[in-house]
Amino acid sequence: MRTNLRFAVTAAAATALIGGALAVTSVTATAAPAGLYAPSALVLTVTHPGGTTDTAARAVTLSCMPGAGGTHPDPAGACADLRAAGGQFDSLLSTAPGQACTRLWSPVTVTVDGVWQGTRTSWKHTFANSCEMNNAVEQSSLLNF
Amino acid sequence: MRTNLRFAVTAAAATALIGGALAVTSVTATAAPAGLYAPSALVLTVTHPGGTTDTAARAVTLSCMPGAGGTHPDPAGACADLRAAGGQFDSLLSTAPGQACTRLWSPVTVTVDGVWQGTRTSWKHTFANSCEMNNAVEQSSLLNF
Repeated sequence: MRTNLRFAVTAAAATALIGGALAVTSVTATAAPAGLYAPSALVLTVTHPGGTTDTAARAVTLSCMPGAGGTHPDPAGACADLRAAGGQFDSLLSTAPGQACTRLWSPVTVTVDGVWQGTRTSWKHTFANSCEMNNAVEQSSLLNF
Repeated sequence: MRTNLRFAVTAAAATALIGGALAVTSVTATAAPAGLYAPSALVLTVTHPGGTTDTAARAVTLSCMPGAGGTHPDPAGACADLRAAGGQFDSLLSTAPGQACTRLWSPVTVTVDGVWQGTRTSWKHTFANSCEMNNAVEQSSLLNF
């Protein structure tokens, strides 16, 4: 894993010796987000309505360190959402009534997987149909992708 | 989820009716990777040596459609690797001898999670120590991050 990771590995071993700090220091300059912070990198997906959770209709990436980026349509807003929610994704779902929806059962599942501030995270939520989903995520930059 | 996803949802329902094609068509132009193809978006992580799999020393994002991108240090090479491997990540691990390693047990786990060509994927591999890992991933653009 090239110089970059080798250094990270050495640094991690060193920090383990001196007390187990979470952050890993790297002095090499690459395109990768190595630095004085814990990594944040996520994949967000949404399934086809009524489809299985094994396939994704859409999938986007999001990284928040060193800067907001990825194929998410609003990386900066999504990262701000994440910081505000402290990784509690349920808090991003709106409970306001929104538009009227039918009671059709054609479930849509939204997932968020990856690493948030160094900690592995995995979240999913299933909505009865895409109308219900639209109501719940309308106010969220993160989940509105 | 804005016009983009609403259209994808409609298109998905339509394709389900005509035989279940994997690709979802979208005619809106946004920063998101909507298009004539199944999405590919992944998060790759590596743990601290000897650490738990709940925390990540490094984490990078990778997307391969519409173009190669993400915080991975070599997105184009990584996407080429993925296509060559057909999503079979084990085939990317080198079995060549490489450098001599100690038998120290300080396990390092590499994970790949997300969506590859529309299908959810989750892979992990644990190496006895970072020297063993370096030998195994030396030839891989995807796993050498």
